[in-house]
Amino acid sequence: MSHPQQITLYTAKASPFAHRVSMALEEAKADAKPEWFAAQVNPADKVPAITYGGPDVPPSSPSSESTKLAESLVIVEFIADLYPDSNLLPKDPVLRAKARFFIETFTAKFSPRSFILRNEPYQPILDAIAAIQDLLPESGMWAVGDAFSIADLNFAPLYARFKLTIDSGLGMYEPGKDRELLNAMADPKYAKFNAYVAHLLERPSFKATWDEAYVKAFMQVRLARPS
Amino acid sequence: MSHPQQITLYTAKASPFAHRVSMALEEAKADAKPEWFAAQVNPADKVPAITYGGPDVPPSSPSSESTKLAESLVIVEFIADLYPDSNLLPKDPVLRAKARFFIETFTAKFSPRSFILRNEPYQPILDAIAAIQDLLPESGMWAVGDAFSIADLNFAPLYARFKLTIDSGLGMYEPGKDRELLNAMADPKYAKFNAYVAHLLERPSFKATWDEAYVKAFMQVRLARPS
Ligand SMILES: N[C@@H](CCC(=O)N[C@@H](CS)C(=O)NCC(=O)O)C(=O)O
Ligand SMILES: N[C@@H](CCC(=O)N[C@@H](CS)C(=O)NCC(=O)O)C(=O)O
Repeated sequence: MSHPQQITLYTAKASPFAHRVSMALEEAKADAKPEWFAAQVNPADKVPAITYGGPDVPPSSPSSESTKLAESLVIVEFIADLYPDSNLLPKDPVLRAKARFFIETFTAKFSPRSFILRNEPYQPILDAIAAIQDLLPESGMWAVGDAFSIADLNFAPLYARFKLTIDSGLGMYEPGKDRELLNAMADPKYAKFNAYVAHLLERPSFKATWDEAYVKAFMQVRLARPS
Repeated sequence: MSHPQQITLYTAKASPFAHRVSMALEEAKADAKPEWFAAQVNPADKVPAITYGGPDVPPSSPSSESTKLAESLVIVEFIADLYPDSNLLPKDPVLRAKARFFIETFTAKFSPRSFILRNEPYQPILDAIAAIQDLLPESGMWAVGDAFSIADLNFAPLYARFKLTIDSGLGMYEPGKDRELLNAMADPKYAKFNAYVAHLLERPSFKATWDEAYVKAFMQVRLARPS
């Protein structure tokens, strides 16, 4: 494989999806310029988006010669492909399929927004945690096999924001529901999941790309209860 | 890579998701036993599901030693990984990312169910066709680059069922809406898309795995208007 070309990442610190790509770049030790305006490279005007290759231009006027890519899961697989030494994709096809199934599972099931934004029941969050826990290997500390992979990487930014939101009592749910949910989550039946996420949020690539104070301030504005 | 192990596919002829896996196995010239009961290998009791490896057992009592995999997109990538000579995954990481973005795009946008099942407006279908067309290379006959890939493979079963349903006038929409939609789709502004899908449905792996009469009979029962 030829040497990877230059990458510019269009991002926003509060976005869990953009955070995935920052983590992948960190894991790959890839040199990428982060920028904060996405409309020029992604017609959907969403972050993350990247440009790849092309001439060295200011990110505010991307070249028509660079490749534009959007969608966090797609970009993370792309970075894993470009930097095979990062080991973000397991070498074994079975483990690779399990990593993708893990991603599919939490994407379909873990959606705390309805509780946080609309005060709907939190039971689906507990069900999602149970489903994710079921997929975790008995002994392992990572989602699949015994190494960190795209499965862990794509989950961390989502879970960190959920946890921070509930721990801070932010959200539109009835006061007290946050404590209730935290107590339910602390049940020993979720011990394997809780050990997994504790370990996950210690991953250096996560810590290097997580600005908790910034995200919390952002959430406080976004989730302010009408007064 | 060692020789792939035995695959049993749990499937159903009417399912577009299971159809994807049949096409992938056909493209890969992989030898797989198709079976018609999924509950034993997929807790969600959905098709497609596969078992991979393990001892040679009857599909009705799968071995605990085989790997169980579900989710069509995950299984198709797995088969592409197992059979690299099938070229289902482009070798170039940029093309591979574009193939995954193509899949992401039609998965998010192409959902004719609301029109077919609930008589909602068909405009979103035309918008999805325009968005997919935008991604098609100017010259090429396939979704990305100049070769058939997982992008084409995953779209074909969905599109074929949609086309068959509308062409047969099946669905819960107001009578006449089917002709209206077909006329709108025939507009020259969708010429590139129409050439693409015509070519797509000629793919030998599609034709070898498509039982139009069976699917139509299935749809006729499922989409019978209350009388
Ligand atoms: N499915 C996309 C989601 C991207 C997304 O929704 N990004 C949000 C930030 S978290 C955004 O840019 N929103 C701005 C907008 O929708 O205009 C991905 O995984 O990359
Ligand atoms: N996201 C799944 C969808 C699978 C799916 O919904 N399969 C349907 C048939 S088209 C099924 O087995 N339904 C049976 C059920 O839900 O009980 C995939 O892509 O494999």
